[in-house]
Amino acid sequence: MIIVMKKSAGQAEIDKVIACLKDHGLGANLSVGSQATIIGILGDKSKLGGVDLTLLDGVQECVPIMHSYKLASRDMCPDGRVVQVGGEIIGGNKLAMMAGPCAVESEEQIVQAARGVKAAGAKFLRGGAYKPRTSPYAFQGLEDEGYRLLRMAADETGLKVVSEVVGVDQIDTAAKYCDMFQIGARNMQNFRLLRAVGQSKVPVLLKRGIASTIEEWLDAAEYIMSEGNYNVVLCERGIRTFETATRNTLDIAAVAVVKERSSLPVIIDPSHAAGKRAYIESLSLAGVAAGADGLIIEVHPNPKVAMSDAAQQLTIPEYAQLFQKAAKVAQAVGREI
Amino acid sequence: MIIVMKKSAGQAEIDKVIACLKDHGLGANLSVGSQATIIGILGDKSKLGGVDLTLLDGVQECVPIMHSYKLASRDMCPDGRVVQVGGEIIGGNKLAMMAGPCAVESEEQIVQAARGVKAAGAKFLRGGAYKPRTSPYAFQGLEDEGYRLLRMAADETGLKVVSEVVGVDQIDTAAKYCDMFQIGARNMQNFRLLRAVGQSKVPVLLKRGIASTIEEWLDAAEYIMSEGNYNVVLCERGIRTFETATRNTLDIAAVAVVKERSSLPVIIDPSHAAGKRAYIESLSLAGVAAGADGLIIEVHPNPKVAMSDAAQQLTIPEYAQLFQKAAKVAQAVGREI
Amino acid sequence: MIIVMKKSAGQAEIDKVIACLKDHGLGANLSVGSQATIIGILGDKSKLGGVDLTLLDGVQECVPIMHSYKLASRDMCPDGRVVQVGGEIIGGNKLAMMAGPCAVESEEQIVQAARGVKAAGAKFLRGGAYKPRTSPYAFQGLEDEGYRLLRMAADETGLKVVSEVVGVDQIDTAAKYCDMFQIGARNMQNFRLLRAVGQSKVPVLLKRGIASTIEEWLDAAEYIMSEGNYNVVLCERGIRTFETATRNTLDIAAVAVVKERSSLPVIIDPSHAAGKRAYIESLSLAGVAAGADGLIIEVHPNPKVAMSDAAQQLTIPEYAQLFQKAAKVAQAVGREI
Amino acid sequence: MIIVMKKSAGQAEIDKVIACLKDHGLGANLSVGSQATIIGILGDKSKLGGVDLTLLDGVQECVPIMHSYKLASRDMCPDGRVVQVGGEIIGGNKLAMMAGPCAVESEEQIVQAARGVKAAGAKFLRGGAYKPRTSPYAFQGLEDEGYRLLRMAADETGLKVVSEVVGVDQIDTAAKYCDMFQIGARNMQNFRLLRAVGQSKVPVLLKRGIASTIEEWLDAAEYIMSEGNYNVVLCERGIRTFETATRNTLDIAAVAVVKERSSLPVIIDPSHAAGKRAYIESLSLAGVAAGADGLIIEVHPNPKVAMSDAAQQLTIPEYAQLFQKAAKVAQAVGREI
Repeated sequence: MIIVMKKSAGQAEIDKVIACLKDHGLGANLSVGSQATIIGILGDKSKLGGVDLTLLDGVQECVPIMHSYKLASRDMCPDGRVVQVGGEIIGGNKLAMMAGPCAVESEEQIVQAARGVKAAGAKFLRGGAYKPRTSPYAFQGLEDEGYRLLRMAADETGLKVVSEVVGVDQIDTAAKYCDMFQIGARNMQNFRLLRAVGQSKVPVLLKRGIASTIEEWLDAAEYIMSEGNYNVVLCERGIRTFETATRNTLDIAAVAVVKERSSLPVIIDPSHAAGKRAYIESLSLAGVAAGADGLIIEVHPNPKVAMSDAAQQLTIPEYAQLFQKAAKVAQAVGREI
Repeated sequence: MIIVMKKSAGQAEIDKVIACLKDHGLGANLSVGSQATIIGILGDKSKLGGVDLTLLDGVQECVPIMHSYKLASRDMCPDGRVVQVGGEIIGGNKLAMMAGPCAVESEEQIVQAARGVKAAGAKFLRGGAYKPRTSPYAFQGLEDEGYRLLRMAADETGLKVVSEVVGVDQIDTAAKYCDMFQIGARNMQNFRLLRAVGQSKVPVLLKRGIASTIEEWLDAAEYIMSEGNYNVVLCERGIRTFETATRNTLDIAAVAVVKERSSLPVIIDPSHAAGKRAYIESLSLAGVAAGADGLIIEVHPNPKVAMSDAAQQLTIPEYAQLFQKAAKVAQAVGREI
Repeated sequence: MIIVMKKSAGQAEIDKVIACLKDHGLGANLSVGSQATIIGILGDKSKLGGVDLTLLDGVQECVPIMHSYKLASRDMCPDGRVVQVGGEIIGGNKLAMMAGPCAVESEEQIVQAARGVKAAGAKFLRGGAYKPRTSPYAFQGLEDEGYRLLRMAADETGLKVVSEVVGVDQIDTAAKYCDMFQIGARNMQNFRLLRAVGQSKVPVLLKRGIASTIEEWLDAAEYIMSEGNYNVVLCERGIRTFETATRNTLDIAAVAVVKERSSLPVIIDPSHAAGKRAYIESLSLAGVAAGADGLIIEVHPNPKVAMSDAAQQLTIPEYAQLFQKAAKVAQAVGREI
Repeated sequence: MIIVMKKSAGQAEIDKVIACLKDHGLGANLSVGSQATIIGILGDKSKLGGVDLTLLDGVQECVPIMHSYKLASRDMCPDGRVVQVGGEIIGGNKLAMMAGPCAVESEEQIVQAARGVKAAGAKFLRGGAYKPRTSPYAFQGLEDEGYRLLRMAADETGLKVVSEVVGVDQIDTAAKYCDMFQIGARNMQNFRLLRAVGQSKVPVLLKRGIASTIEEWLDAAEYIMSEGNYNVVLCERGIRTFETATRNTLDIAAVAVVKERSSLPVIIDPSHAAGKRAYIESLSLAGVAAGADGLIIEVHPNPKVAMSDAAQQLTIPEYAQLFQKAAKVAQAVGREI
């Protein structure tokens, strides 16, 4: 942290800032410039607690220099982390391909979906059992029965199960059925839930909040990791901007930024970003080319009768075709599917 | 809902859309224009369930016409709702003035704060017991002890307690100490928490999410109300935009929009919007002039040693001064404090 | 400017940065912290030209400390600037009240508007002669004839004329008819136009771009001032965000931020921010309470037949009523209209 | 356009709306639903001029159905347009590769850059002669001399010249030296400039404004095309959002959206989106995979001494390497470079 003093600040004010740092066990480095005096803090600034130095007389602003996350940082694991989910690996040379319906609707539906995406090449079955919905009057999911059906369909087809948890009290049940928990975008800063999945040891797919910066997203990952669960995979699914042509704006640069700042694998969810079937293939191939570690895509055996998010779910043949195209792009960038 | 057909759509496709509506117990009104054919849906569109008509051949887009919230709408209560919290009223001619520290830090601090804001004229004591923080390494609040200290300080001074709940499991304890629950911005779409406070009957202060539209905010209020708790007060506290001069961008127009669309009272939180003491007075007076039903402001007996959000907390004398100015503006717009 | 070195940077890399600064006539202040080494630049960083120090080996980032604008800054004129437009003053204790139709449509329309807003109390007549429109097929204004009609209506009623200039080649003609030029939001970074109005000496009303930060806005003012024209008044008219309930989001905090950073007067345009008549009064009163130096409001003798922006134009009686309410709020905050 | 009536609207109000439409030569289709009455307009709504139907009593809102652009629409040219620039084609199977420095700085610099990017495989030389800069004190370009140097370097190497025009008065000079005009992001809604390049017949590269929706961007293209110049190529270069890790947020989905709505070719500018060299390769490959028709990339023979945008310019060897990778991805998606 660097403290920038006001132009008008005198020696007495500078001395008080230095004294305040000393009181908290910190040193100071003074730099008297032509336009501003700046004070660099020597030592671990967490010793300051909640003290806000901008409140001291003569201080213009404090400029943070370091990230607040540590375990999630690239520095801590320069070669990148690899996350194991059952026998599958996320973060290696091979892309993690996850697919399945927005919501689990029935045994028939999820089994058909599982068979379809498995045949296309996917290794993970996604599907919502608990569905957070904007309106209380919309379909909210089959809940625990949804988890059970997902497990059944996955076992029949040899897939891994990824499904969302929305409350601390579901985690024990969900852990019986899921290979990987998903934390949804709306819960990215539900810190109690983050701590709880951090204690569970089940691998976690952490979606980015629609209004969260990449720094806040990595801080959220840090919550999970700080409880001892390092099996975190990030998922970029679009942010909220002024553009309304798509449901959200896929921040494709997040892949490169995450790779630079963090050791965690990062995958792309083109379905929620696009919100429209016609754009999903383009976003998927972009994600693979950008260097993402996988794709999670909504696929439904019959989107026309889907109970939620129908507009953005692919049919099984559409997914199979996309899979083949993604494989070619993966190969072009030295990866495989 | 209105269905806009593609220019290229033929009679067969139009017939199929109408047949689909019929299958769901809905009627159709056909309008053949020079540039597009549109189909109006007759009947309650919730009969469609999750069916997405944009997936039918020939459909270009579906345009929603009605809001999804009902209980929170202005139509349902054209004169506006009044919320009772203890003996205090929110939503009438008198503004609700809430103040107190960002976080409860100690008995001494909260008692001093309570006495100060009471003397200035406030009727509600705010203070965080559970603090959601971006980083897991930041101060997280005194938790249940914080609730207890708030109650004590409020009882001594005759104030009502407003404090945040962050998890379903805290609600019973919090209900013993708080007169009003706050749902924080990060939890505005934590639907399980919304339902739980909806079942509790304790009045709720619902902060707007930093990336939530006003429609989504009213849908969140609907979650609480649909469980039977109509004592909801909305709180605008700034949204996330590209501007970084302030912590968030106070959407002052939200006051007028909420008053038009909803029957619920709405107050302003200038502290979190500004993120900087110097701007709080200006935003507070703007809120009162805009027609808000109250102000919730962070006040600390000694901001220089505050454990969180120090930069945006007022001192007690600053608050007392602001209170007097707000009273004058309130009078100018025909309200009182 | 502060240079933050990478954790991995060694002495050789630090020495190279210092040598580079020396080559450009700059000194360096080294601060070796526990987590990072930082280098403060001593001297005027403009000596660096376009050199980007982040490209030097071992450099993590460069953190700017100072603003790039000087003439527009508060430091340069701590008491605030006052702008004279004809005999009227903007920036003093009295609010500048500007009103008139979106576009000049006919002699009858603009004369009626002028009489109406004058009777209500306004001192400035606004009206678009050249209208930048999103679609090439929309009404583009009466052009030079519009300026002429504005002048005529203003002269008859004793008002000052404020009207937009959209091209460098119009300035001479516009200067014959206008007391104040308006630079529209879309042209806030049309730097050639800024320089040209800077050379003209006619006072300038500089609207904020819908995606411009306050810093960029002040930099745009600096363009005008750097040509010798210090008569610049800023106008906040809403920024683009994700919220669609209003046409733009009025950044009401911009008033307080501008007052802190700049010496220039700042007024509010509630009409373009709201985009809807029902919200204009609330935003206007908020602007006055926040400390703005005036209001510019769209008023039309008969909005139902207006050729542009009909939805956001007030009738003359509505404006007269708003004026009276604004006067009360102005008085409550120690100002007059 | 669809008119949604208020719930409270009676027959008299509905009749007035229909009468108003009739007065303007338009028909009406009435749809009386259980929750709302809607009126579809029959005929060309441009007959309404600026009349805003939302001002009629009983009208709740008007919902637009059709785009305002026509020449730029996909409907008008379903197979997509191909733009010829000299002998080079943009919009066909082959990607247009444009590269060169941010600004032309000297003969030596631009000739080195031209040779380097030509050897790497580029067909177009980019370089700024006029540089719009946020601060008036920053380097503003070599102006006409810059155009001359670009032409010379391009002629020596057999490249086409793409360079920005910032004012109507430059167009004649620029036309002597440039094969393609660039309209920069800040000027995307400088409608006088758009009309002027529309009259010039020189092909135009139209960058998207940082806060412009895709619809507004296509409306801007329409301005150029409506003057008779159909040689327009769109360039996505990132939009402004809350995320600060990158200079702008590349809206990669814009490629798919433009391909659906418009017939115009669209290329990607990863340099301005990223603002940081380390992210450019990832964004470039994503652009190619997403289906873009080309890439425009900032390349400097020695970025460390560049006079502007140094942080985001690639070296020539970096560009050559990126070019090879892009070629592989292009092949994977059935395109060539």
